[in-house]
Amino acid sequence: MTKLSEMKAAAITSMAQALERELELQKSNRLSLDLTRGKPAVEQLDLSAPMDSIINGDYRASDGTDTRNYGQLRGIPEARRLGAELMEVAADDIICWGNSSLALMYLTAELAIERGLWGDSRAWKNTPDAKVLTPVPGYDRHFTLSDRLGLEMINIDLNNEGPDLGQIEAAVKNDPSVKAIWCVPKFSNPTGCSYSDATVEALAQLPKLAAADDFVVLWDNAYAVHDFQFPRAPLRNLLDAARAAGTEDHMVLFASTSKITYASGGLAFVAASPGVLKEIETRIGVASVGPDKVNQLRHARFLGGRLEQHMALHAQLMRPKFDLVEKVLQDELGELDIANWTTPSGGYFVSLDTRPGLAKAVGELAGEVGLAITPPGATFPYGRDPEDRNLRIAPSFASLEDLKAAMQILVICVKLATLRDELQHRG
Amino acid sequence: MTKLSEMKAAAITSMAQALERELELQKSNRLSLDLTRGKPAVEQLDLSAPMDSIINGDYRASDGTDTRNYGQLRGIPEARRLGAELMEVAADDIICWGNSSLALMYLTAELAIERGLWGDSRAWKNTPDAKVLTPVPGYDRHFTLSDRLGLEMINIDLNNEGPDLGQIEAAVKNDPSVKAIWCVPKFSNPTGCSYSDATVEALAQLPKLAAADDFVVLWDNAYAVHDFQFPRAPLRNLLDAARAAGTEDHMVLFASTSKITYASGGLAFVAASPGVLKEIETRIGVASVGPDKVNQLRHARFLGGRLEQHMALHAQLMRPKFDLVEKVLQDELGELDIANWTTPSGGYFVSLDTRPGLAKAVGELAGEVGLAITPPGATFPYGRDPEDRNLRIAPSFASLEDLKAAMQILVICVKLATLRDELQHRG
Repeated sequence: MTKLSEMKAAAITSMAQALERELELQKSNRLSLDLTRGKPAVEQLDLSAPMDSIINGDYRASDGTDTRNYGQLRGIPEARRLGAELMEVAADDIICWGNSSLALMYLTAELAIERGLWGDSRAWKNTPDAKVLTPVPGYDRHFTLSDRLGLEMINIDLNNEGPDLGQIEAAVKNDPSVKAIWCVPKFSNPTGCSYSDATVEALAQLPKLAAADDFVVLWDNAYAVHDFQFPRAPLRNLLDAARAAGTEDHMVLFASTSKITYASGGLAFVAASPGVLKEIETRIGVASVGPDKVNQLRHARFLGGRLEQHMALHAQLMRPKFDLVEKVLQDELGELDIANWTTPSGGYFVSLDTRPGLAKAVGELAGEVGLAITPPGATFPYGRDPEDRNLRIAPSFASLEDLKAAMQILVICVKLATLRDELQHRG
Repeated sequence: MTKLSEMKAAAITSMAQALERELELQKSNRLSLDLTRGKPAVEQLDLSAPMDSIINGDYRASDGTDTRNYGQLRGIPEARRLGAELMEVAADDIICWGNSSLALMYLTAELAIERGLWGDSRAWKNTPDAKVLTPVPGYDRHFTLSDRLGLEMINIDLNNEGPDLGQIEAAVKNDPSVKAIWCVPKFSNPTGCSYSDATVEALAQLPKLAAADDFVVLWDNAYAVHDFQFPRAPLRNLLDAARAAGTEDHMVLFASTSKITYASGGLAFVAASPGVLKEIETRIGVASVGPDKVNQLRHARFLGGRLEQHMALHAQLMRPKFDLVEKVLQDELGELDIANWTTPSGGYFVSLDTRPGLAKAVGELAGEVGLAITPPGATFPYGRDPEDRNLRIAPSFASLEDLKAAMQILVICVKLATLRDELQHRG
């Protein structure tokens, strides 16, 4: 194989015909393959089985709290210590509440809009056209949440070391309607990149640069310990950097155990400065008499002090799947030089960029053969990928065998769409 | 003992002095008694102990769902069936989500404000001074929630058969800014009264009478199966009555297992018409990838089909406490004829009315002796009991022994405050 750009038109035509025949063959297999879902596989969920019998009649938290009764809005001490281990901040900086960090993000964004995070007159609702920066490609639920809350989204390119700092600075420094930035700082969804120390430092400084005095960095550290190798890769500590910069009241950090224990029955955490945490606690307390502390106790007893050890077991299951994805992409697309993709060392996704204008075509070809991929465009606000080239691959849920079949179809689709495009351009 | 009104001043003075000596004596005992908390007692929580080992490695819901993974925003089928048993509506009318019906109430009220419940242009935010009817005495968290969301509260007298229908009709029929009514239809907090069939029928008709076209009945059925005798006392079915009246799109019903299993680790339910339920589901889906379905499975397996049987065990623990409260109140206050109180056949509270103007004084006297009672005023919006006479007694959490000691102090405080008041009035 050689680079596509160096191939003769006749060779391209003949290759395209071969790929079409292959796809026809696959069609008759009536496959039902799915690469859409960033869900843990059954084998990963099984890793937490011991957790379910860990209560064993002893419902008392370390501070004597009966976890079965009302109260403890911030969570029991050992759950907050678990959060501290996960988020690398102090337990005192954490509220452990609910089963969903996304719910805490919604609550925080809405609080910032309606009342502000600071107990003063600052609130985003005072700015009718409040905006939020969305590094792209990014996480579709951040976009849906922002859109629902009426926040306009501004794309920022996500590079290998984090979001483009030049673009961010240009966006915030003269426009007081720019109120926040969404960040997935480690193994970002979908590229898998992690923010460099310099990026974290710059983000900690950002509130000083922003024209808005109520600017907030929304730090969704969903994959804090989801490395494929341990000890985990370091991430510069945002809250520490913000304290040094005097901007700690403008940082809100999120994490959960959704991809550590159970993807619906886990714990969620929010961390912030004391003042901001107090505002969040007050808001939670209006609509809650306390979190599910029994589940907090289960988690703390099961994971406390052995978080990385547990995540290493996940890594054993994840690494072969990501290796497989990399191998198929490299083998099938590498020499042709028709696509770029990421090779993450953790997280849940691989990001694949086709040539511009082809992502939707690939998605359609795949759909015809029974392979579901994340809808092209989903990794951008409003579902609009301006270059129509980004595809998100989610290898975790499928078995290795299904993943291999799915990847083989995916690369056929990418090749075929690209060859057709090349032929059309050579016209 | 005779009625206070028939006693001579000298006898009153002498009785007051004796009570003061008794209180002084109690003070030296340095008591720490608490009647504030509507919390299940440890023995009640222990009733659910078998639930914690009920998963036993089998995480599949009845429809094959792996409860450990994402999805199923409305909850697993058997959890919704449990909700149906509890709420006496169809499982299809229910979403089972989260651990707190209060959170679902907040979500619903906020949705009604921001976007409406109907997917059209109706929304309470279009009315700048939106108001909500609050039957009093009532549940303080309804008041806090309403206040936080900027809803002005209008008091409606709560009678023995439910809120005063005449007052309600007068409030809603000419004022389109009156948007909702809070209801605790069975064993209401704090009086313990249950709504009569006629009250439920009238409330089902209410949206037709209301000037607001976006009026909502918020039906917090927190004590649906919390009877002291079984089979449970019937409650006219609101959703059925509303369907007959064509008003079902204006009813939202809430319940939870907080006082059935664990007071923080239970399940919460919301029921409504298909259209309203869809709007609520959409809102939930913006900020959630699914509820804790493992806990749903635990609950459904433990309680499904034996809900009343389980609640009968609670009743065995609750009844003696309520009997004790009634006996002390009757023995100590009955003949003097200086107070009124309720004698509920279920729920968590007894409501005690002193003579007007004395509730705060009673609370202060009790506090001095080491007895904490729910702050007088808490059963009214803005903490303001216009007659300063209502006290809420929460007998559930204390042991029988502590409850007896607490009640004996409480009646001394009521008597002493009343005698002093009587003496002052006689001048």
